[in-house]
Amino acid sequence: MIRDVDLNLAESLFGELDHATRRGRGIVRDTYGPGEQAAHDIIRAAAGRIGLEVTVDAIGNLTATLPGRDRRAPRIIIGSHLDSVPQGGNFDGAAGVVAGLCALAALRQGGVIPDCDIGVMAIRAEESSWFDVSYLGSGGALGLLDPDCLSVRRSDNGRTLEETLLERGFDPGPIRQRRKLIQPEQVRAYLELHIEQGPRLVAEGLPAAVVTGIRGCKRFRNARCVGEYGHSGALPRMLRHDAVAATVAFLHHMEEVWLRAEGQGADLLLTTGELFTDAAAHAPSKVAGETRFVLDLRSLSDQVMESIASEARHAAERIGTKYRVAFDLGPATDSPPAMMDARLRGCLMGLLEQPLEMPSGAGHDAAVFAKVGIPSAMIFVRNDHGSHNPDEAMALEDFGVGSRALIGLLQRFPL
Amino acid sequence: MIRDVDLNLAESLFGELDHATRRGRGIVRDTYGPGEQAAHDIIRAAAGRIGLEVTVDAIGNLTATLPGRDRRAPRIIIGSHLDSVPQGGNFDGAAGVVAGLCALAALRQGGVIPDCDIGVMAIRAEESSWFDVSYLGSGGALGLLDPDCLSVRRSDNGRTLEETLLERGFDPGPIRQRRKLIQPEQVRAYLELHIEQGPRLVAEGLPAAVVTGIRGCKRFRNARCVGEYGHSGALPRMLRHDAVAATVAFLHHMEEVWLRAEGQGADLLLTTGELFTDAAAHAPSKVAGETRFVLDLRSLSDQVMESIASEARHAAERIGTKYRVAFDLGPATDSPPAMMDARLRGCLMGLLEQPLEMPSGAGHDAAVFAKVGIPSAMIFVRNDHGSHNPDEAMALEDFGVGSRALIGLLQRFPL
Repeated sequence: MIRDVDLNLAESLFGELDHATRRGRGIVRDTYGPGEQAAHDIIRAAAGRIGLEVTVDAIGNLTATLPGRDRRAPRIIIGSHLDSVPQGGNFDGAAGVVAGLCALAALRQGGVIPDCDIGVMAIRAEESSWFDVSYLGSGGALGLLDPDCLSVRRSDNGRTLEETLLERGFDPGPIRQRRKLIQPEQVRAYLELHIEQGPRLVAEGLPAAVVTGIRGCKRFRNARCVGEYGHSGALPRMLRHDAVAATVAFLHHMEEVWLRAEGQGADLLLTTGELFTDAAAHAPSKVAGETRFVLDLRSLSDQVMESIASEARHAAERIGTKYRVAFDLGPATDSPPAMMDARLRGCLMGLLEQPLEMPSGAGHDAAVFAKVGIPSAMIFVRNDHGSHNPDEAMALEDFGVGSRALIGLLQRFPL
Repeated sequence: MIRDVDLNLAESLFGELDHATRRGRGIVRDTYGPGEQAAHDIIRAAAGRIGLEVTVDAIGNLTATLPGRDRRAPRIIIGSHLDSVPQGGNFDGAAGVVAGLCALAALRQGGVIPDCDIGVMAIRAEESSWFDVSYLGSGGALGLLDPDCLSVRRSDNGRTLEETLLERGFDPGPIRQRRKLIQPEQVRAYLELHIEQGPRLVAEGLPAAVVTGIRGCKRFRNARCVGEYGHSGALPRMLRHDAVAATVAFLHHMEEVWLRAEGQGADLLLTTGELFTDAAAHAPSKVAGETRFVLDLRSLSDQVMESIASEARHAAERIGTKYRVAFDLGPATDSPPAMMDARLRGCLMGLLEQPLEMPSGAGHDAAVFAKVGIPSAMIFVRNDHGSHNPDEAMALEDFGVGSRALIGLLQRFPL
């Protein structure tokens, strides 16, 4: 008989993590630094108390395993990261590791011996704040990293990733050789619980949701509109080359494109988070000769992003001509969407009292596991005030709802 | 018999001015500095050669007078300024003074003795680049300046206007006492020839035009839109407080308002020359929480500007609500339009072979004279590449067309 998730265990682990890594108002679990290591030490000790087997791979990912009946059978990984952004919150990343430990503690205390090994993987280095590369831990374990990343320097102390790994007693070799530390065919499923980073569950009044997939991103990072500066009082409209007017017309059109796509049921977010005239040349009495802006597209569908990007290029051409300016959207960076496994999603939906599915806008290690073909699933837990800030607010009861779904899913295997 | 305008005289004066005040690529006739003084010295010498009476008022405005039959009758002033912006062109300002001298030279050589005195006024300090106050020379002569302007400091050397006047041998007293150096009722008309600062005459293929009036300006200098920052991948459209999306919607609406006003024949220009998200807080992956922008309205009609400003305030309210953000347009600065005298305009139109009337977007000393009720008129001369830059390009033949209209107008007095 499996016991309910032990919220006292969860509360005490969150308390330990908070105590060990709070610096001023926020949490600092610096990637491959003392903050992340302190969190790993806490998780390792807790895993020992629960009676799990603990291993650490060459690049520092820690796995606490509940042995299964067939130890050679493909295993289940419950994963999440333990690092944080500078001055982050206590839950982004850590909640998934704590949920994994609580789940294995519940199975163990219930005397369950699963078919296969179930490991809780405390993943290193998911955040890109310290080293400007995301998913170093999961990407490194799956042999996906470009070895050049070893020379990326930590933003605060300037040490390369290679130097940092060596200082911590880890081995850059597998990254240099693109060697897999995890064989994808040896993983039956990857499961991750994470706080929601957007406000939707708060708005919907629900404690948890199932993630449909992790949105991809196509981003025009360096879009520009070039017109001509002129006197705002002397230049008639028809003789203007007004970069602001043209950019406004372009962005307004793109909002209409978004609304139309939404109306057709497409998953799409469209954001211009940076937009500016040139502070060295603009003036209140001048028609603007230049703007720079970002156009950020997010979707679960590559095809949707491709079609919106193509519409953006056409609109830029057309509106540029109309306003006598030249748009240059520049190159688009691409990060593909990662769909979560349909069977796992369906199973999780059946386990929630008030089932809701939603996409994840932010990236997660689950996207890396899904990318190599491992069936992956994610559970979002309601969280107020967004993430990556000291005000992350996840209620323990909501964490309980998500963790119960995770335990329920583990019991359904083999699906 | 009056001779044609002496373009050799004009050419040699423009050459002298250029030679004396070109610094590198551009012209530097610094307000109340050696550059402006050098131009005054050239004009004074030329006036002497033509046989005009030269006087200089307490604040340095120079007047070269062709005496009239009745020396006590209200006189005609042909005015323009001799200072330039830093690295300006050779014609902005100076063309009007040279035109005045050429006109009086033509009358004198033709043996004309006018009814009243006609003075060419080389006005000081029209530009606000050196002291951050416009129209110091004309405003000071007409007793309109706020005495506080005496403590405004020159942008390059930090000396106050008062110190600068005293160093040059002038007297700040009249400004301090708001004392008029010119009695408006003693001026029959103020006439000014100036290069066009916009591109319209070039576009129309015409050498000169008559100015209908000088546009006023109502400017929201510090408009803001405040929303909330959020994750561009995680925040659904309906939960966003997107300051960029709202600002785009607002500015797009204002462009529609402009087009509608234009369609109804209103004189209106609407410009957002500055627009920016906060560089300290924005990011490609963040919904923007704030924008700042300028909304600059120009029109010959106070009523048009008032009604557009009122529409802007309503739209900001309505669109702010729709996008869940707060617009704050802030206070509007006001500079009223100045209409040119209808009789003088009509007369000038009759003197142009290809008559065209157009508003002036930029400010001119003529606006100051019109403000105190002196019938004023302006002639624009075609000029390529705009003004306030070293590339000002006025053809001597076009200058001739404008100057001939000026001479023609002088012969029509009394109207």
